[in-house]
Amino acid sequence: MTFSITDHDPQSKARTGTLTTDHGPIQTPIFMPVGTAGTVKAVHQRELETDINADIILGNTYHLYLRPGLEVLRQAGGLHAFNGWRRPILTDSGGYQVYSLSNTRKIKEEGVTFKSHIDGSSHRFTPEGVMDIQRTIGADIIMAFDECTPYPCEYGYARQSMEMTHRWLDRCIDRFDTTEGHYGYRQTLFPIVQGSTYPDLRRQSAEVIASKEREGNAIGGLAVGEPAEEMYSMIELVNGILPADKPRYLMGVGTPANILEAIALGVDMFDCVMPTRNARHGILFTTEGIINIKNEKWSRDYSPIDPGLGGYASTFYSKAYVRHLFKAEELLSGQIASVHNLTFYLWLVRQARTHIAAGDFVSWKNSVIPQLMQRL
Amino acid sequence: MTFSITDHDPQSKARTGTLTTDHGPIQTPIFMPVGTAGTVKAVHQRELETDINADIILGNTYHLYLRPGLEVLRQAGGLHAFNGWRRPILTDSGGYQVYSLSNTRKIKEEGVTFKSHIDGSSHRFTPEGVMDIQRTIGADIIMAFDECTPYPCEYGYARQSMEMTHRWLDRCIDRFDTTEGHYGYRQTLFPIVQGSTYPDLRRQSAEVIASKEREGNAIGGLAVGEPAEEMYSMIELVNGILPADKPRYLMGVGTPANILEAIALGVDMFDCVMPTRNARHGILFTTEGIINIKNEKWSRDYSPIDPGLGGYASTFYSKAYVRHLFKAEELLSGQIASVHNLTFYLWLVRQARTHIAAGDFVSWKNSVIPQLMQRL
Repeated sequence: MTFSITDHDPQSKARTGTLTTDHGPIQTPIFMPVGTAGTVKAVHQRELETDINADIILGNTYHLYLRPGLEVLRQAGGLHAFNGWRRPILTDSGGYQVYSLSNTRKIKEEGVTFKSHIDGSSHRFTPEGVMDIQRTIGADIIMAFDECTPYPCEYGYARQSMEMTHRWLDRCIDRFDTTEGHYGYRQTLFPIVQGSTYPDLRRQSAEVIASKEREGNAIGGLAVGEPAEEMYSMIELVNGILPADKPRYLMGVGTPANILEAIALGVDMFDCVMPTRNARHGILFTTEGIINIKNEKWSRDYSPIDPGLGGYASTFYSKAYVRHLFKAEELLSGQIASVHNLTFYLWLVRQARTHIAAGDFVSWKNSVIPQLMQRL
Repeated sequence: MTFSITDHDPQSKARTGTLTTDHGPIQTPIFMPVGTAGTVKAVHQRELETDINADIILGNTYHLYLRPGLEVLRQAGGLHAFNGWRRPILTDSGGYQVYSLSNTRKIKEEGVTFKSHIDGSSHRFTPEGVMDIQRTIGADIIMAFDECTPYPCEYGYARQSMEMTHRWLDRCIDRFDTTEGHYGYRQTLFPIVQGSTYPDLRRQSAEVIASKEREGNAIGGLAVGEPAEEMYSMIELVNGILPADKPRYLMGVGTPANILEAIALGVDMFDCVMPTRNARHGILFTTEGIINIKNEKWSRDYSPIDPGLGGYASTFYSKAYVRHLFKAEELLSGQIASVHNLTFYLWLVRQARTHIAAGDFVSWKNSVIPQLMQRL
């Protein structure tokens, strides 16, 4: 995998680049739609490719491991062959879901035992096992197995957890570097910076992660409830240590404002369930601001969802029609809103890219954030 | 509206034709996907037009009247403008839903009072009112207000109901013929033959309906639980009386076998929720037979849903992937299955058309029905 930086913004740490994988290029900054169980909810693969034009999507190791399971994925020839998505895929390590979804989990040095949220069956994730699982899923970019601490987090726990995450990282690297992909294309492993909201821990973690010299690095454990300013402060600190010539991935972030601010701090990659989850609840991100399409005020607004955005879903369907679909609880409501919101998120990062190249990213960001974040 | 017949099958009453409306031509025999609340469930309008290539879709007067309501539709410029479907639309009269969905309904000579299944509010449908409502919805083909009797139905009730349906028809025609469409294109009114499964009543009703000399005629009150042979027998009787140079629409039918048998009896138009409702439950109609995609046997079948059918949904996604989506209760499951099943239903009537034109419809029908109806 290669990463080449094209442009640097003169007023911030923002940059544009291209991350090249065996499944094609990823133009950064990029937003990666979340395809939890091998499907971006309510969105056809063709729509992802042609309407949303996503460069890369995510899969969740925890979900895919439990269902359809590794044998089905292995025999298919990996997740790309299974779901028909031909562009790059990134899988998380499953850790986050183990902590948030499974009923009972025990975190020990060896790994994590947990019960499936589906049928209560018992499973264990270890750093080595999670590497093997992600080899089988076959993502282009796979993530180290870490512990994502909650917010707030007591200092002692945050430090111990971070240190274990570092030990787990060494085990991940050992396993990854002594195994091969199953399907004839290259995979790469990104380590993850932890350390909660403690500057000294974040500094220490970023130094450890940087020292591993992987092809890309991630920042985890943020956007878990802390104030946005604290998140930005941690990102700035960490990005000052992570190598500038490698892509930086901020996990699980965020709102349009979060994404633009983090781009200004030198982040290249993002994922978040927000555009698709909010879509299914009728919250639409538009170039004019945020719409709750269920509100009565849209019932006779026959204008397109977002003519300024372009694209099928955003310009073909009217606000009044989509509101009707939500009120009638029609499946098409979530389909339209999901394609629309993802189109918006990809538009957002492409606009950022354009403005970085043009040298006016910061002034554009500062003027557009209040507009994009206002409630219409 | 004009109807021209192109080919007659030499061995049956099957025929091909073209029904021309202000929203474009309808090639018959045709299957009309059901878009209850102004949306064919889980299917984008673009998919209906380009993948499924439906010539015409249905809307349900009962649902559209209650939600989004007539004011929203009127201000939009009718249902076509509201949902963006540019080809023909047919609306039912609302009668069937009043009888099957609303909590309490009282059928009197003047009309039917009922309570909304959504909020319990009280409403009245009369023949005149239902004409006005369908004028406002703006369908190309609108249906007379009738009573659809259940099966079995006592003879006396069936006769009285049929006679009231005939009186209601006169009121529908009076209202329809003295009003205009609101949106600048022509609408046409189809009357409906009733009479339960009583040959003398069906004969009498078909004669009354034929005498009205409308541009098309419908057969209602079938596929409500009676044996298929009894349904075919009623269709044959009625079609012997309804004018041969007008399109004949068999309401609410049915399985692939039902449709081919009815085509052989001279039916030109069909609608049914079966392809979309079954799709959402994982039942897929294919050129090889009927699949319950949730079954374990498909878990590692990586072949396309139906390579013989063609089209995006049917050839892009594998059985194993779609099974996984159903087991994981992912929204995309119903989306894929709905597009696939409708693609199949449109393929079916187009195959019928081709074989009628080729003169081998009956032998094709008899050989293909066992294949299409077998459980795989």
